[in-house]
Amino acid sequence: MQRLSETLFRSLLDQMDTFLFDCDEKSFYTVKNKRIILVTNNSSHTQKSYFEKCRKMGFSIQSEENVVTTSTVCCDYLRNFLQYSGKVYVIGSPGLGEELVRFGYSHLGIGVWLVHAIHVKISITKGDFVKAVIVGIDVHLSYAKVLKATTYLANPECHFLATNDDARFPGLHPSIVFPGAGAMVAAVKTSAKREPIVMGKPNKPIFDYVKSRFNIDINKTIMIGDSVLKSPSRDQSARCGGEASEEEVPVPELIQENSELQTDIAFAKSTGLKSLLVLSGNTKLDDVGTNDIVPDYFTDSVADFCHFA
Amino acid sequence: MQRLSETLFRSLLDQMDTFLFDCDEKSFYTVKNKRIILVTNNSSHTQKSYFEKCRKMGFSIQSEENVVTTSTVCCDYLRNFLQYSGKVYVIGSPGLGEELVRFGYSHLGIGVWLVHAIHVKISITKGDFVKAVIVGIDVHLSYAKVLKATTYLANPECHFLATNDDARFPGLHPSIVFPGAGAMVAAVKTSAKREPIVMGKPNKPIFDYVKSRFNIDINKTIMIGDSVLKSPSRDQSARCGGEASEEEVPVPELIQENSELQTDIAFAKSTGLKSLLVLSGNTKLDDVGTNDIVPDYFTDSVADFCHFA
Repeated sequence: MQRLSETLFRSLLDQMDTFLFDCDEKSFYTVKNKRIILVTNNSSHTQKSYFEKCRKMGFSIQSEENVVTTSTVCCDYLRNFLQYSGKVYVIGSPGLGEELVRFGYSHLGIGVWLVHAIHVKISITKGDFVKAVIVGIDVHLSYAKVLKATTYLANPECHFLATNDDARFPGLHPSIVFPGAGAMVAAVKTSAKREPIVMGKPNKPIFDYVKSRFNIDINKTIMIGDSVLKSPSRDQSARCGGEASEEEVPVPELIQENSELQTDIAFAKSTGLKSLLVLSGNTKLDDVGTNDIVPDYFTDSVADFCHFA
Repeated sequence: MQRLSETLFRSLLDQMDTFLFDCDEKSFYTVKNKRIILVTNNSSHTQKSYFEKCRKMGFSIQSEENVVTTSTVCCDYLRNFLQYSGKVYVIGSPGLGEELVRFGYSHLGIGVWLVHAIHVKISITKGDFVKAVIVGIDVHLSYAKVLKATTYLANPECHFLATNDDARFPGLHPSIVFPGAGAMVAAVKTSAKREPIVMGKPNKPIFDYVKSRFNIDINKTIMIGDSVLKSPSRDQSARCGGEASEEEVPVPELIQENSELQTDIAFAKSTGLKSLLVLSGNTKLDDVGTNDIVPDYFTDSVADFCHFA
């Protein structure tokens, strides 16, 4: 692992033609005349919304298509790899639903439906409707949704996909632990007694998608990994959810995440890409030694690029 | 493993003074002049409601105290083993809540609260309220509940208990897979990045409770295990949960459960108790060979006791 010097950066600019970035705002930095692709495990927003956000921030990503979300990868996998054309049962967010519709899929499950239901109508027919279940992050998670997903998955012919399995989601409040898609996936796979195919980093499907879609040369592509945890922002405190017995509770220290090692750098290592760890997030240089996932290069901040470029 | 003959049954009656039964109705059979204890992983009902159900069915269990639920074990563990006296955050059912109150605990979380909440108010104070989280089966599971549980559990001093981790729950409808407490536990432990202490069979806490509470002699105690799946009952079809896009869906074959091997017999083996497998449930004799959990005795039905006694 080498610290990124100006010489090294210039040499990388010469060697690389494609820069993959995670969608963390702090890692958004335009590398002129290079192809930039955003690769995110987040399934809750569409390509379009990410693209617009980037434009607003002055991050010159070339096209909407250069935003790769796990929703897109999931839909592409379903259509092109599994060649599935039926209905999809989803535990997930509206962004995933929009992406399914864009790919021509009808879906069931998204939204607040079934939240209060204990009993669910699943009629006994010889129909052939739902043979694919997708699980991603869903703030309207419910028992009935897990029941429906699990019941569909009892059919061994029913496909089981997960957008990603990140344990936590970067929230605005530093003291609250926001469960990630991994929590939803764990619930379903436990009662389904089956393992899903996981689309997101560090797994292979998202890499396969990027590789074939953009025809990348792995020797000329580098993954830039930053922390997935946003900066603490105390003025954006969480709103009340309406629990009757709401009380002031002790908020413990936030457990530090090393997501960029666990997802981005691991993703790069497993796929043969070069990797650059940016330390402006929550990963400290010392953390790297405790892990067998070691990036090729590291730098304190993507702002360094400004000085070198 | 021996088939239970009349001679063997009479010999067991001579040797044993305590009969532990799972709470499956099919295994309810009174063994005269012997101590009978019901030992269930179910945390959703109280001792009292189980006792009344047994009496109505003519099953002469000696006392309400002889019903051991994982709710009771959980509360006892919290009070007597962990010596905890604060508030408890619960993902669970009203039965667990009632048991907590009976043990003198205040609890938060049970019910439909927070089901629709995306944001949750967790004030930042130096308070000292919730340092115990219990997870059991909860038909009002929600994202906000998992978030709260996980946030409390980020404090390493916060206790983490699970009533049980059964993947599925016996439902009335044979074609629907009802997620068990294990699904809820999996969601929380994934985002909390911690393992709970699990009360239920085949784990030790429930055995320790039975052993100390009833002063049982393990050489004179036998566990009778039957299937946890109830008989199919097609007239008790599930009710509609109100999903807008409700449709008739294909219902796959129910995956057979071998819960009595995985919980009751495994429980007996790990604790040194003798065990009797009753085949009137879903376990077939052939299933036993595929597993290293082998009961001491087996019989086709507890009705055999009638003939022998």
